[in-house]
Amino acid sequence: MIVGGALTGWLDALERLAGSRAKAGLTRQLRPRPADDFVVDLAGNDYLGLSAHPAVVGASAEALRAYGLGATGSRLVRGSTEAHAALESDLAAWLGAPAALVFSSGYLANLAAVRGLSAVADLVVSDAYNHASLIDGCKISGQRTVVAPHNDPAAVAAILDAHPGATAVVVTESVFSVDGDLAPLPALHEVTSARGALLLVDDAHAVGILGPRGAGAVAAAGLAGHPDVIVTATLSKSLGGAGGVVSAPRQFIDHLVDTGRTFIYDTALPPAVVAGVAAAIRVAAAADDRRDVLLTRGVHTVARLTAAGFEVAPPAAGVLSVLAPGPEAAVAWAADCRDRGVAVGCFRPPSTPDGTSRLRLTLNAGVSDEDFTRALDVIVECAP
Amino acid sequence: MIVGGALTGWLDALERLAGSRAKAGLTRQLRPRPADDFVVDLAGNDYLGLSAHPAVVGASAEALRAYGLGATGSRLVRGSTEAHAALESDLAAWLGAPAALVFSSGYLANLAAVRGLSAVADLVVSDAYNHASLIDGCKISGQRTVVAPHNDPAAVAAILDAHPGATAVVVTESVFSVDGDLAPLPALHEVTSARGALLLVDDAHAVGILGPRGAGAVAAAGLAGHPDVIVTATLSKSLGGAGGVVSAPRQFIDHLVDTGRTFIYDTALPPAVVAGVAAAIRVAAAADDRRDVLLTRGVHTVARLTAAGFEVAPPAAGVLSVLAPGPEAAVAWAADCRDRGVAVGCFRPPSTPDGTSRLRLTLNAGVSDEDFTRALDVIVECAP
Ligand SMILES: Cc1ncc(COP(=O)(O)O)c(C=O)c1O
Ligand SMILES: Cc1ncc(COP(=O)(O)O)c(C=O)c1O
Repeated sequence: MIVGGALTGWLDALERLAGSRAKAGLTRQLRPRPADDFVVDLAGNDYLGLSAHPAVVGASAEALRAYGLGATGSRLVRGSTEAHAALESDLAAWLGAPAALVFSSGYLANLAAVRGLSAVADLVVSDAYNHASLIDGCKISGQRTVVAPHNDPAAVAAILDAHPGATAVVVTESVFSVDGDLAPLPALHEVTSARGALLLVDDAHAVGILGPRGAGAVAAAGLAGHPDVIVTATLSKSLGGAGGVVSAPRQFIDHLVDTGRTFIYDTALPPAVVAGVAAAIRVAAAADDRRDVLLTRGVHTVARLTAAGFEVAPPAAGVLSVLAPGPEAAVAWAADCRDRGVAVGCFRPPSTPDGTSRLRLTLNAGVSDEDFTRALDVIVECAP
Repeated sequence: MIVGGALTGWLDALERLAGSRAKAGLTRQLRPRPADDFVVDLAGNDYLGLSAHPAVVGASAEALRAYGLGATGSRLVRGSTEAHAALESDLAAWLGAPAALVFSSGYLANLAAVRGLSAVADLVVSDAYNHASLIDGCKISGQRTVVAPHNDPAAVAAILDAHPGATAVVVTESVFSVDGDLAPLPALHEVTSARGALLLVDDAHAVGILGPRGAGAVAAAGLAGHPDVIVTATLSKSLGGAGGVVSAPRQFIDHLVDTGRTFIYDTALPPAVVAGVAAAIRVAAAADDRRDVLLTRGVHTVARLTAAGFEVAPPAAGVLSVLAPGPEAAVAWAADCRDRGVAVGCFRPPSTPDGTSRLRLTLNAGVSDEDFTRALDVIVECAP
């Protein structure tokens, strides 16, 4: 054995990096939860409470018995089941798009969508607060990327105008994952369509919650099915499952089937997950009652927290962001809530795009009114 | 609406690209299979036949009832369950590594591993036949990458020697996914350890099949747990489920928890998948009988196909590659097999690293002896 080479030297280097992260308060800890966890969940993304819905669990269990657990191969080899095909046509119909393609995660769907568009575009204009998977999509595509100020259609227009020869794609989330604010989709689409640019919207946090029958923020903005709009979403949030989807004109879906590396070279989503998500769509499309609960709770939460002296904006969908005095205070606040049985998210720099620290609260129609009220009490009582 | 801009122009461009792919014979087609598909599967990666094993399906169904379908959040928010923690310690113990971290796919695990190593290394030496996810890992890390000739430790040594100042990571698959040949891991490790370089091995197609108790090719080579060896694998092949894993020294796992974008910003693998995979490990570790079946079938297949005049190398694990006269012949061969109820893989350029066309056959201990024998008959009878 060699001494002093990479054999252990790299571990020393990693320990030094870990030390710097610890000093900056950036060490992260996994906290496994039990199945009979009685914590009130205002941290996850199970907005409609569908992950444990009997119809979802039942459909998933049935497919598990019928197909077994894994898809046993990539989509183009053995991984496509009739459950996958059915989910894709359900998704296309629900989202109002010509076609839809399911991926094993929203992350891989975003990588494929952004990279796939580089076949026809040569400039990406990416919102400053975009999700890691969209940013990585820009990186992996090797495409020229300009970062636009957050939610600023005029700035996007100026960037496009400054690149008159380019074929551009403007990439944005709809409901932003950390702050919960909504992108000005109609204004953005006006900007892109007037300039011959494409618009790619990651609708992960709006599908199931906004729009007619929960079809998402793109549908709510009247942009579903537009030939210059590409939508991505996850099946892991309001639909209570896992996986991702790209919905778009048929030609782009075919392009991804033929050339999308994260589609072709990845094992398909398990049929039991696929079937559970398909059941979740049926529930979600009819769940105006659950969407009403979210709406009411959003209004109620803002009123309650504002009255208690906190800064919190009205949520566009199921995500609320509450300003904390600083990173340590945010951590302590979330930890105190957890100790009292309420799970809330806690975001500090560099995970927050604007450098502030805050709690991230999510609304969850699966939580009872009583638990929800108690959770708000706990959040207020634990405040720094 | 604008006419002639990107609104539909990009669709025309996509159609032109599709036309070129069609001419080159590169159009791909999804063929959804039903649950009661009676096709004999020599195309998927369910080597041990565990995807439908009662212990796997039973454990998965139980977790589905206990946890619901989705993990409801990323691993650091709500997505870590006790099932995830248990699987990670089972994987570390089985693979003989200090620690293991589960990802939602092998693809995302590889992106994280390669990118994560760029924190301590500044050169990647990547085997020419590496999987798309490893190549994308190099790309996304932005790291200086040198492609080494396939399975050539002397060439790797020469590349390392030509970069004396660099801290390098040598990246390879163990059993290569298309050809089924095995990387010379002991020789590669001699080269890396003598030069202070790290060795990253994607053990996707060997875990469950090679090594003591199926612990993989890294274990078979006596390299499990070495402080300068990092292993990735998928949970979607011999383990019959879905997901990916990185096993490595604790310091690197901690680094990925704190900084791995495809770990942090991705919804956790569903608990039901996690529990099914944990059950599959218990079966796989004790499944010397199934591994014997694979070995015998491998020898038998080579004998049969060689006698029939085909070129096929002895498989290192469960993947066999059979040379076809050309791309059209390969496609016709696979289609004829499918028509007669036998699924086989078909690889043509550019999906084959060396420009030849061939059938890819996989061994599957879940297939009965009778079906297997018949499948070989069909393959021979359908040969061009
Ligand atoms: C906006 C957004 N896009 C994409 C993703 C990735 O989706 P998935 O978790 O299914 O990989 C997430 C969250 O995880 C997200 O918040
Ligand atoms: C060698 C290799 N690495 C990684 C992967 C990706 O794993 P997953 O399918 O779990 O994303 C695959 C196959 O899909 C593979 O063959």
